[in-house]
Amino acid sequence: MTKDQLFDQIKKKESYLCVGLDTDIKKIPNHLLKYDDPIFEFNKRIIDATHEYCVAYKPNLAFYESLGAKGWESLQKTLEYIPEDIFTIADAKRGDIGNTSGLYARAFFEQMNFDSITIAPYMGEDSVKPFLSFENKWVILLALTSNVGSDDFQQLMIGNTDQHLFEKVLEKSQEWGGPEQLMYVVGATKSDMFSKIRTIVPDHFLLVPGVGAQGGSLKEVSEFGMNKQCGLLVNSSRGIIYASNGEDFWEEAGKAALQIQVEMKDYLNNYL
Amino acid sequence: MTKDQLFDQIKKKESYLCVGLDTDIKKIPNHLLKYDDPIFEFNKRIIDATHEYCVAYKPNLAFYESLGAKGWESLQKTLEYIPEDIFTIADAKRGDIGNTSGLYARAFFEQMNFDSITIAPYMGEDSVKPFLSFENKWVILLALTSNVGSDDFQQLMIGNTDQHLFEKVLEKSQEWGGPEQLMYVVGATKSDMFSKIRTIVPDHFLLVPGVGAQGGSLKEVSEFGMNKQCGLLVNSSRGIIYASNGEDFWEEAGKAALQIQVEMKDYLNNYL
Repeated sequence: MTKDQLFDQIKKKESYLCVGLDTDIKKIPNHLLKYDDPIFEFNKRIIDATHEYCVAYKPNLAFYESLGAKGWESLQKTLEYIPEDIFTIADAKRGDIGNTSGLYARAFFEQMNFDSITIAPYMGEDSVKPFLSFENKWVILLALTSNVGSDDFQQLMIGNTDQHLFEKVLEKSQEWGGPEQLMYVVGATKSDMFSKIRTIVPDHFLLVPGVGAQGGSLKEVSEFGMNKQCGLLVNSSRGIIYASNGEDFWEEAGKAALQIQVEMKDYLNNYL
Repeated sequence: MTKDQLFDQIKKKESYLCVGLDTDIKKIPNHLLKYDDPIFEFNKRIIDATHEYCVAYKPNLAFYESLGAKGWESLQKTLEYIPEDIFTIADAKRGDIGNTSGLYARAFFEQMNFDSITIAPYMGEDSVKPFLSFENKWVILLALTSNVGSDDFQQLMIGNTDQHLFEKVLEKSQEWGGPEQLMYVVGATKSDMFSKIRTIVPDHFLLVPGVGAQGGSLKEVSEFGMNKQCGLLVNSSRGIIYASNGEDFWEEAGKAALQIQVEMKDYLNNYL
């Protein structure tokens, strides 16, 4: 999917919501366990109920890998079930030396046909570049994450500059690819940083986790983070997919997604 | 496996060799393709031929994941085939927020029964800690990698200190776990750094890739990196597993491993 196509979807649906498919076999409603593939059955109903209100789905690979080969199959089926016009993110946080990153790229972009993958920047250029050689596929580089540990290294000051490590990641990585290929993860819990981040990456999309359960404010993220093409994909996982634990879980998930979409419509009208 | 048990194996085998099972379906000998699971058949023969000369095996997950669910099964079978007294490393370079890292930990330590996993430090403490709550299991944290891109961020100077980012990673992570639980990846191509690294982490094991194909010197790594309990696991992948592409590939792999073991025996006598 291209950047313009993604923006078209955002305008059409009046939403920049990404639904995180962090599907945990221990948390899904009991009545699904009778099926051969409960994870897929759960995802299918969540997708049915939410696809009108979101522009992206983001399965976190840990939830699928922790089930071994069977989880891998659930993921493949989920991906095939997601409508064509919705952007897909493999939240894999990979990153390895060049030839090995190339293997991951083929796995996620060719075999699984994801639109994008999240990548950890620690190993530098040759760990990222193999992912950038695929047309209309995206790298979403971790910059400033929403977790507590982001203080440990991401927010260290670099040498005699006024830059934090995450700002150096934003700056340096622009030598590797442009805003048609690269997005960045910036946690919603760091909304005070969004204005500064937009001076470094004015045109890039940002994938923003941490709204809802983790405490980030959608309003602040939207006010300070939005650019001319929206430039935001705001993720919600638990708040949507586990909105209810009953047989009506998919209805409640739909309602939770709709509620966010209605709020986003306002922000698109105000800040775009 | 405990640190003492690992050192016992090193003394017994007079070796600190780790064989990287980076098994690429495109590179294995043709005659194996007739089997149901060529990847496992290849690994099985490599393990048969090399297990007397090495103390660790390190499958890089990318090679298995790139084959989807089937690759996952090959990996599981390979792991079950590795003799009990050999240390196993999931070269996965994972790292996610706390609860998600916990899922990865269960996947690799409980379901797959790996002794250790490689972890990227960028997301900080809560991405590492869930792996440290498993008894006799290890985190191998990326510090200074052997690839070209390691210059981009790992070797940046931090604030007004004389520390590089990778030194900060070595220092900070010691608050999370001791040398019985934590090892570090330090590339053999950076052998001039080993003396300095040993002042920060005198007692930890270092996993050292980059000898052989990538150009690092085993002698220099051993001279400057060894500590009282050896403290080194030196990895070789391509130089061993692809020593020959013929039907005798396993014999040539065994010879290549033996050649390194003989050299290591010397260094253990000289530097331990």
